Amino acid sequence: MRTVKNVYLDYAATTPVDPEVFEAMSPYFTETFGNPSSIYSFSSRSRAAIEKARGQAAAALNALPEEIFFTGSGTEADNWALKGAVKKLRSRGGHIITAKIEHHAILHTCEYLEKNEGVKVTYLPVDGEGRIRMEDLEAAMTDETILVSVMFANNEIGTIQPVKAIGELCRERGVLFHTDAVQAAALLDIDVRELSIDMMSISAHKMYGPKGVGALYLRKGVKLENFVHGGGQERGRRAGTENIAGIAGMGFAMEQMKARLPREKPRLCALRDRLIDGILKAVPRAKLNGAAKDERLPNNTNFSFIGIEGETLLLDLDAKGIYASSGSACTSGSLDPSHVLMAIGLTHEQAHGSLRMSMGRHTTDEHVDYVLETLPDIVAKRREMSPIWEA
Amino acid sequence: MRTVKNVYLDYAATTPVDPEVFEAMSPYFTETFGNPSSIYSFSSRSRAAIEKARGQAAAALNALPEEIFFTGSGTEADNWALKGAVKKLRSRGGHIITAKIEHHAILHTCEYLEKNEGVKVTYLPVDGEGRIRMEDLEAAMTDETILVSVMFANNEIGTIQPVKAIGELCRERGVLFHTDAVQAAALLDIDVRELSIDMMSISAHKMYGPKGVGALYLRKGVKLENFVHGGGQERGRRAGTENIAGIAGMGFAMEQMKARLPREKPRLCALRDRLIDGILKAVPRAKLNGAAKDERLPNNTNFSFIGIEGETLLLDLDAKGIYASSGSACTSGSLDPSHVLMAIGLTHEQAHGSLRMSMGRHTTDEHVDYVLETLPDIVAKRREMSPIWEA
Repeated sequence: MRTVKNVYLDYAATTPVDPEVFEAMSPYFTETFGNPSSIYSFSSRSRAAIEKARGQAAAALNALPEEIFFTGSGTEADNWALKGAVKKLRSRGGHIITAKIEHHAILHTCEYLEKNEGVKVTYLPVDGEGRIRMEDLEAAMTDETILVSVMFANNEIGTIQPVKAIGELCRERGVLFHTDAVQAAALLDIDVRELSIDMMSISAHKMYGPKGVGALYLRKGVKLENFVHGGGQERGRRAGTENIAGIAGMGFAMEQMKARLPREKPRLCALRDRLIDGILKAVPRAKLNGAAKDERLPNNTNFSFIGIEGETLLLDLDAKGIYASSGSACTSGSLDPSHVLMAIGLTHEQAHGSLRMSMGRHTTDEHVDYVLETLPDIVAKRREMSPIWEA
Repeated sequence: MRTVKNVYLDYAATTPVDPEVFEAMSPYFTETFGNPSSIYSFSSRSRAAIEKARGQAAAALNALPEEIFFTGSGTEADNWALKGAVKKLRSRGGHIITAKIEHHAILHTCEYLEKNEGVKVTYLPVDGEGRIRMEDLEAAMTDETILVSVMFANNEIGTIQPVKAIGELCRERGVLFHTDAVQAAALLDIDVRELSIDMMSISAHKMYGPKGVGALYLRKGVKLENFVHGGGQERGRRAGTENIAGIAGMGFAMEQMKARLPREKPRLCALRDRLIDGILKAVPRAKLNGAAKDERLPNNTNFSFIGIEGETLLLDLDAKGIYASSGSACTSGSLDPSHVLMAIGLTHEQAHGSLRMSMGRHTTDEHVDYVLETLPDIVAKRREMSPIWEA
């Protein structure tokens, strides 16, 4: 059997920096390195690079440039949105609503707020496909509710939330709406205005930009306490010398991503659907986790193979040159089953036997063929050895 | 008169990335981009890069690798140290001691803590050279004191604090000692063990590494609440996908810096002293701000030229290809006089007429000659036009 080397199927964990993005970043390391806050002419080029990137990021989201604040990561943006909103609005109320399937950047921040700020957090359940129910959200809202944070699309199972409906309900009730769009922003057309989003977190390294830079979209007029205090960077909202190269890379990556999306999205959907259909057909009792095709990220597949340990499967795939994941990269190493898979009602056993394969710009039909040739055999062999598998 | 182009004298604001550092970073953008938290073989190279950098950073400071936590900036490290310590120790006491000449990353964080955590902060005065007095520190300590944060060396006037004495006093009293070494770490040999430092903030872009990455040294055993909550990165202490390229660059930069220091430090001191002596000789009523040569950063000069606006001077120098600063880059654009210069007893007028020239790896004797040829004339001409200057 042939071995196709380096079939990277973990784009949800991180993406390579696009060579053109890298080129756009390159001048800002050794050459155009001036501190953007300095007043001499040399540093104006650094300022210009940042403002160009801010414009590119804003244009990709239908935001205003002054609504984009660069951070050190998507996680920092999540922390800022939640902690900053609570600090600002604590006197108006002490209740936050989020969902059980959020990324840990949201869940652990909520736990911190519960413990340290006396905030009450409602963790909405989700249906079997990983979607919150609007009636649950509505029922959870009280006069004390100051913030709703529901992710745009889930990082493990790819389920897209009813963001527009959530945004409209929050706007109607005068409640702030934050969405973690770290997974979604590279794969979906997002219009923050149309969707009534107040705050949105994004990350460059999920969209072919560099690691170590993210951004918070903050709708004009929304008040937030700062998170990182210090110098006057980012118009006094986020202290620390700007990561010029990283910011330039993020802006360029977002512009490029936006331009490619009309062709890339259907391409990925086709690859995804072929992979899903192929595996469901070739692997007995394979279960697709997450939503149906229309409400699923274009690049996401997530399966449970009962009778198999996910980690074993990953190592077998690794040996064949296929790089995939059992869930979120941010929690791998943990022995707990995925909180996302548990929330959609999987058993421990199903959750432990899960496999996420997420596709991207360099995924080809040949890669999908190779996985379809390789994976069913691996699953069959591991199941033969499994004490809990009964064919 | 000749014009030497691009005499960059703002190394205290930021440094260029060293070409070798850039080379060390380069593979981690487009090629070795795997998420360090993933379990397949490909991502182990990302993990290895981070652990190599952690070792390099630790070795440069005589710390243990497990005492180094990478952050998104020196400012983030400052925020984490102060806010994390207060969250952890608030029940033991609510008093912090810092100094009036700290960077805003410390001062604004202290203000936040005063306002939001009910913490009392003592801002120690400094002497005319910018040094805190040990007797003031000792007198300020109470049973409520949980943390002392005094910077290693000042970013505007270069004064080095009595760090060893502060560390020993804090250790003796059982009070946590944090130092912001963002300016000092590239220019001084720092041994965290010898100096009894519990926490120390550093930043890569001040030491020929990239912008957007810093680190907190956290002595083994010191307990701190996390600052950025989320995934399990940095052994569960700092969430967010690691900036592999940035971290690799920071580690390499620190190793390189450490190796170069024995020759670079005396070289910079000689340049500095020649610049200081030349200007004091050539410019009437020029005042050197900060400490004498032994207790001053090797690369720092800071002058007041009475009768002149600092910003005008900077623009005149810019026109001659000399890039300098009137103080901290992080606060430029502000009309307030430098809080550091006010703290050492300057008048508003003196503080407004200040000029910081900070040297670095690419500064040469020729650059110093050029400044000595250029600056006295500029000062003289501006003073002629000044309504407040009387020769």
